[in-house]
Amino acid sequence: MSNKTKTDKTNLGNFFEDFRMGQELRHATPRTVSEGDAAVYMGLYGSRFALSSAATFAQSLGFERAPLDELLGFHIAFGKTVPDVSLNAIANLGYAACIFGAPLYAGDTVHTVSKVIGLRENSNKQSGVVYVHSMARNQHGTVVLEWNRWVMVRKRDANAAAPTGDAPKLAAAVGVDQLHVPRGLQLDSYDNVLAGSPHRFADYKVGEKIDHVDGTTIEESEHAMATRLYQNTAKVHFNQHSERQGRFGKRLIYGGHIISIARALSFNGLANAFRIAAINAGSHVAPSFAGDTIYAWSEVLDAQPVPTRNDLGALRLRTVAAKDQPCADFPYKGEDGKYHPAVVLDLDYWVLMPR
Amino acid sequence: MSNKTKTDKTNLGNFFEDFRMGQELRHATPRTVSEGDAAVYMGLYGSRFALSSAATFAQSLGFERAPLDELLGFHIAFGKTVPDVSLNAIANLGYAACIFGAPLYAGDTVHTVSKVIGLRENSNKQSGVVYVHSMARNQHGTVVLEWNRWVMVRKRDANAAAPTGDAPKLAAAVGVDQLHVPRGLQLDSYDNVLAGSPHRFADYKVGEKIDHVDGTTIEESEHAMATRLYQNTAKVHFNQHSERQGRFGKRLIYGGHIISIARALSFNGLANAFRIAAINAGSHVAPSFAGDTIYAWSEVLDAQPVPTRNDLGALRLRTVAAKDQPCADFPYKGEDGKYHPAVVLDLDYWVLMPR
Amino acid sequence: MSNKTKTDKTNLGNFFEDFRMGQELRHATPRTVSEGDAAVYMGLYGSRFALSSAATFAQSLGFERAPLDELLGFHIAFGKTVPDVSLNAIANLGYAACIFGAPLYAGDTVHTVSKVIGLRENSNKQSGVVYVHSMARNQHGTVVLEWNRWVMVRKRDANAAAPTGDAPKLAAAVGVDQLHVPRGLQLDSYDNVLAGSPHRFADYKVGEKIDHVDGTTIEESEHAMATRLYQNTAKVHFNQHSERQGRFGKRLIYGGHIISIARALSFNGLANAFRIAAINAGSHVAPSFAGDTIYAWSEVLDAQPVPTRNDLGALRLRTVAAKDQPCADFPYKGEDGKYHPAVVLDLDYWVLMPR
Repeated sequence: MSNKTKTDKTNLGNFFEDFRMGQELRHATPRTVSEGDAAVYMGLYGSRFALSSAATFAQSLGFERAPLDELLGFHIAFGKTVPDVSLNAIANLGYAACIFGAPLYAGDTVHTVSKVIGLRENSNKQSGVVYVHSMARNQHGTVVLEWNRWVMVRKRDANAAAPTGDAPKLAAAVGVDQLHVPRGLQLDSYDNVLAGSPHRFADYKVGEKIDHVDGTTIEESEHAMATRLYQNTAKVHFNQHSERQGRFGKRLIYGGHIISIARALSFNGLANAFRIAAINAGSHVAPSFAGDTIYAWSEVLDAQPVPTRNDLGALRLRTVAAKDQPCADFPYKGEDGKYHPAVVLDLDYWVLMPR
Repeated sequence: MSNKTKTDKTNLGNFFEDFRMGQELRHATPRTVSEGDAAVYMGLYGSRFALSSAATFAQSLGFERAPLDELLGFHIAFGKTVPDVSLNAIANLGYAACIFGAPLYAGDTVHTVSKVIGLRENSNKQSGVVYVHSMARNQHGTVVLEWNRWVMVRKRDANAAAPTGDAPKLAAAVGVDQLHVPRGLQLDSYDNVLAGSPHRFADYKVGEKIDHVDGTTIEESEHAMATRLYQNTAKVHFNQHSERQGRFGKRLIYGGHIISIARALSFNGLANAFRIAAINAGSHVAPSFAGDTIYAWSEVLDAQPVPTRNDLGALRLRTVAAKDQPCADFPYKGEDGKYHPAVVLDLDYWVLMPR
Repeated sequence: MSNKTKTDKTNLGNFFEDFRMGQELRHATPRTVSEGDAAVYMGLYGSRFALSSAATFAQSLGFERAPLDELLGFHIAFGKTVPDVSLNAIANLGYAACIFGAPLYAGDTVHTVSKVIGLRENSNKQSGVVYVHSMARNQHGTVVLEWNRWVMVRKRDANAAAPTGDAPKLAAAVGVDQLHVPRGLQLDSYDNVLAGSPHRFADYKVGEKIDHVDGTTIEESEHAMATRLYQNTAKVHFNQHSERQGRFGKRLIYGGHIISIARALSFNGLANAFRIAAINAGSHVAPSFAGDTIYAWSEVLDAQPVPTRNDLGALRLRTVAAKDQPCADFPYKGEDGKYHPAVVLDLDYWVLMPR
């Protein structure tokens, strides 16, 4: 009951005409996450958010122990879909409605399944857009992450018939009522000093912009180690020999690596944003390469109390990462609507913060 | 009861005349392996074989939890022998009959002991070949790995008397009946989809060649981190200041690093080769350096059912790694018997695969 | 009850006039350490001291399991103080009387608190020297490390009034009676062969010098991964874009990285120095950069039996690290009292060794 059509032993991936509406793709290689993964992730990003850093802090919030960084789970779950969904991708077009469910703990095993929810052949018959909804579950079957993604995929044979089907309309943002609050969360003894900032939910105003000040330079071995840790096999990240002849002449950095760098930098200004609850949308505006120094800034797009909780708020943030460009002036888009040339990431997401 | 002769506090290693037939070398620094080691290893190689990646998959095969990658155990055990056996090596000549025993789990401690099984002085009296048989055991005394190795070692003093003794004749390959099947292994619920390939034992034919397609570029910090993780102290891997004056002008990459890269690449085409059972022989045909991109291909040398099991087969594989050379044309040896100049590794080994 | 004065969401750190005598600084982001941290640390330094390497060896000495490397704990605890103490530092002037307490085990959470014990404004009113005494405790409140440190910190406003207070006089060295012996330590079955050296306490003489022989070359990604693992946020280590315009034109390496490299190298000659008990003083004599190859040598400054133990001694060592300079000639200071230009580290510390 394989979900692939193959002509030999090597996985050639699915081409556009191999997909069909409603098709379920059980992705290979489930992955048990560990404190080892957390440590490698720490070495790669140095994140200081207290919830993932300290068991004592996590326990003071009602967690049994420190959950893993949400983005580590995201990258691993996402990486699983690459061999089945995007091995023959021409472009990763977008993702939306990424909702984080149950926290992921060391020892949990992530299984990922995707369902094809939209197929639209391009008019040139050379390719088409595949929309998938993916679910990552732990070993108990509890959802730890779900998201939608659409990718332009090459056809093997331009003359092949290709089934089509409309993609469901996805909301521009996850509603605050859809956000998952970790079970048992209690914030009575949340300690600002240990968390690293006196600023809580009520201190942030919609429209406020925060420069995260610091910058971090990317090395080849760091992004490659990160991407391998996630078992993401997209070729462009690892093979200098072939990329030398490619579009950029060098290895391209996995977009998720930039997201994790930006999140770690955002601690300086958002230390109490203790958990990412959802990603509404993300654009990898420009490619990043080894040697680039990443800076970031954030804007508060919305601020909503979390329903049924009087101790918890959600901030909708836009975090922008720029390369070789400090962010005191908040580089973003020009009057022509085009991005500032230094911008590499435009991420729209919800974080949880104590009120 | 030290097994060294020393003149000062620093370990100068054993010279050829220090060895004697039957001598037992208990190697320093036992090593407890952990999920942390597995995570660093994952960051270095990104291996996707399901058995080591997921506790759930391992449990479905009758393991209590996910064992560590066999090669991680190999590298650690091998590294232990360096200070006593090959610190004064002129050349690592070969290894043979490497048999993997009990799986290694996080929390196990590896102790390694070698026995001198052959000594042959070179006619110039400057050096000799030392043959050792090494055993790595876990904390319960169970063998996790055994192997034979021979190394050309310098003499401290050309005039020193040197005992000799014939090395036992080693078979060209481990017999399939010598392969260790993990205790409790059951394959009834082996899931091809989760493992990443529909191709099982019966689908592979002797003589079949598989291009593993992908390539991965090596960085200095990656091979150095790997080699330190294994506590392998061979100087040539770490010291650019001295290697600049050396034969190659740069740091040489530990041969085992190439083996692990090739094994990880081989997932694409051999995903159900869930465990390496033995290494028959390995040649590090040419040196590798940072910046090299490693590709790999494999040939099926033999395919044997595993005695007493009707669900398990063993494939004898030759995996060849080449640098800066895609392997669609299977670069190997020319008509003159000489290796293609891009080949860096020629590895002959047995893997287990479900029938 | 924050201990900061802030004008916006970003942490600008404390300036000299923000400190006051006796002030207690509870540092942000407690940190749970894990076997993952130990593995990353192993990948970075390759240390072979048996106590931290093997649970079996640790148990033979009366430990419940292998404690983490002392320096890993030191770097993590030290890193915590950076955002509150030295974000506006002009210079790290020194540290003293660093005493290691209870061993740190995987699963322990480190909380760090500092107390201001001295304040001396500089005559130019632009800055002043802040002296702090820091304590790192585990989740049970047991001290795992304490140390004193002094830093020259910029004033925000030269005209601001600045409280002053004399720093306590710190002894040049920790007394041997102040050293902490791990609870339950027993050395009857200490195994020289497994530990890697036949040389015990009585074999070392005051004045003896040991060349540690090997050298290791530093890569950008290695020191950056190390420094992020410690959650040390000092900007100079990570940001090539800004450092390009800085004093050196490149990223500066965290001094603690050099200490860990030197300690790992010192195994060759000091393998039975199973635990660092205290650091008396350390000077980062010159900066180090990626590409430097670090060598090290040690001198025995003192050798004392540990009070109430007839099985344990303490060696006071000076370990000197030099870059791109082998240490067979023990580079140190010239007749003019100035350091040899290759020297980067001069570390004075106590180690425990079996008698």
